[in-house]
Amino acid sequence: MVEPRVYAAMAQPIVGHLDPYFFQISEEIRGLLATAFGTSNQFTMAISGTGSAGMEACVSNFVEDGSKMAVLANGFFCDRLSELGRRQGANVVRLEKPWGEVFSDGEARDFIKREKPNVVAYVMAETSTGVKQPGKAICEAAHEVGALVVADCVTALGTMPCNIDETGIDAAYSCTQKGLGAPPGLAPVSISPRALETLRGRTTSHKSWYFDLKLLDEYYGSSHRYHHTAPISMFYALREALEIIREEGLPARFARHERNHKAFVAGLEAMGLRMFVAPEHRMWALNTPCVPEGVTDLAIRKRLMEGDGIEILGGFGPLAGKVFRIGIMGAGSREENVLLLLDRMESALRAEGFPPRSSGVEAARAFYSA
Amino acid sequence: MVEPRVYAAMAQPIVGHLDPYFFQISEEIRGLLATAFGTSNQFTMAISGTGSAGMEACVSNFVEDGSKMAVLANGFFCDRLSELGRRQGANVVRLEKPWGEVFSDGEARDFIKREKPNVVAYVMAETSTGVKQPGKAICEAAHEVGALVVADCVTALGTMPCNIDETGIDAAYSCTQKGLGAPPGLAPVSISPRALETLRGRTTSHKSWYFDLKLLDEYYGSSHRYHHTAPISMFYALREALEIIREEGLPARFARHERNHKAFVAGLEAMGLRMFVAPEHRMWALNTPCVPEGVTDLAIRKRLMEGDGIEILGGFGPLAGKVFRIGIMGAGSREENVLLLLDRMESALRAEGFPPRSSGVEAARAFYSA
Repeated sequence: MVEPRVYAAMAQPIVGHLDPYFFQISEEIRGLLATAFGTSNQFTMAISGTGSAGMEACVSNFVEDGSKMAVLANGFFCDRLSELGRRQGANVVRLEKPWGEVFSDGEARDFIKREKPNVVAYVMAETSTGVKQPGKAICEAAHEVGALVVADCVTALGTMPCNIDETGIDAAYSCTQKGLGAPPGLAPVSISPRALETLRGRTTSHKSWYFDLKLLDEYYGSSHRYHHTAPISMFYALREALEIIREEGLPARFARHERNHKAFVAGLEAMGLRMFVAPEHRMWALNTPCVPEGVTDLAIRKRLMEGDGIEILGGFGPLAGKVFRIGIMGAGSREENVLLLLDRMESALRAEGFPPRSSGVEAARAFYSA
Repeated sequence: MVEPRVYAAMAQPIVGHLDPYFFQISEEIRGLLATAFGTSNQFTMAISGTGSAGMEACVSNFVEDGSKMAVLANGFFCDRLSELGRRQGANVVRLEKPWGEVFSDGEARDFIKREKPNVVAYVMAETSTGVKQPGKAICEAAHEVGALVVADCVTALGTMPCNIDETGIDAAYSCTQKGLGAPPGLAPVSISPRALETLRGRTTSHKSWYFDLKLLDEYYGSSHRYHHTAPISMFYALREALEIIREEGLPARFARHERNHKAFVAGLEAMGLRMFVAPEHRMWALNTPCVPEGVTDLAIRKRLMEGDGIEILGGFGPLAGKVFRIGIMGAGSREENVLLLLDRMESALRAEGFPPRSSGVEAARAFYSA
């Protein structure tokens, strides 16, 4: 969901890519993004591409032929991280977990200490499963062996605390269309001083010119050296979306996401649905209830889409047919949406032969008024 | 200049990146772009990045470690093409010409036949100099030695015939913010069947996942296999901009660019300014009059910017201080803009101690009414 204010900002007349007004906006974005990421990193900016461009920028700048990249693999986007590392010529080693589970501190630490990689990558909030992965032990172990940490914050940014400085993350990336509530088109990234130092010490030139963070640092930094023509309209949109977040306040925003998530879960469980992820590992922005026996996820999704114009997603990969993936985030994370969704899911489940055990809407209402 | 219709289209509510409506739009874009490029290439689409992303996609998919890339180097963007090729590991060989000159058919042919490269790259319309480079002999020679041809159509697309099929170009890229009149944010590309075949036969995996044309072909092609989340709003904007071009008609649009360019040149020459580029090699979208003796380009540009809010650019590299670079393109290529610009330049030149020989405005008026 994108708020009308963001669309209106995006449609403002463009200026040149070296115009002082553009750099004023990029500086505002730098500050607002840094707050959302929880960082004092000077290099906090948006890459001119979508979220995956952020992933590619963060992997490809720190991994090269012969690097060792360790991936904590428990979902789809960990697989993509691995793929990107391999393409850059890295020796990718993986610690595997079934989708939906998290890595304990000890598991992560043992793996990293054993492998001694150059780069460790993990996903903070995995959209394919609904799991959030704690990162502190990962980062500590990585830094002990001299590795940098790349973290996927795609669904995390703007919906939960990222705390990348406190956690120790060296290269974080996200997108604009999930927790930030802007249209897709930019990839926020934040790079630690430690990572920048590694970059400056790199003796081989980066294969990619478009994603070369050293060049981007010169463009957005004080020298404003021409690199590429940034998508100005998307910067307008991102600035406005971040301004909305600033007005709400991050703590209030996170609390809102948590509250609506918990109300939704209360409703789902009252209806007799089981959540796929253990309570302590659930992210707030994306809910993954299991598909009840005797019901197909496609039938429910079709009823919601065609009857109510509500789009929920199904699982894929190992979770195909097993879970729903229901995003309640950004401007969409609202009590009325939670209640509407529960009401429509109740009808859809009943129509598909799964009469809810009790009313999801009432359970969520009870949660809200408690 | 972006027309209000394009801004309005861009601000329409977004849909999902796998929504049938999105693919309906991407199919419309495919058809409209193909017309503008002058091609029947099935792979005619927009890369989710700005113009430079198109350059990187076209170079990096066809050049790898040990490839030989031949660049016809007569301007800034030829240098960037060389840089991108080198980063991909290519042995880059260059035929050099002073900025502002073009390569004759014989020179291009001899160079290509001698070097026998895998890829030949040239710039169709060089924004740093105002020169257009004929491509037919380049493509013929390249194909005779089995090379693919990459052509920069950044300023060409939508302002002059690209004719990429007739010319023999295998990989063409452009941007949205010049001749097409949309905000920056996408890179139109068109890939020949011959180039796609080369791609499919490539045994090494592409270093870049984001720019992998094989994956993008699957996303935008009939299988719609999920790749990345495309910047939907930019696709809306591009579709609308292309629709405006379709309504005007390409021949009328090119004629309009040619006419306004020629009127502007008539005005400049009447004022006593000399054009940097020989008449037969001038592109229509960007004019490069020489800075007259005794005048600094910065002083004139400052007067226009601060007094009239008109932005013209200066030369850079070997042309720093020597030429103005004045873009008159897209929706901005209009008689009233040409006359206004000449009038304001006349005042600025006079104020800087270069009284025009005769009235540029009158000369342009005479041209228009001839």
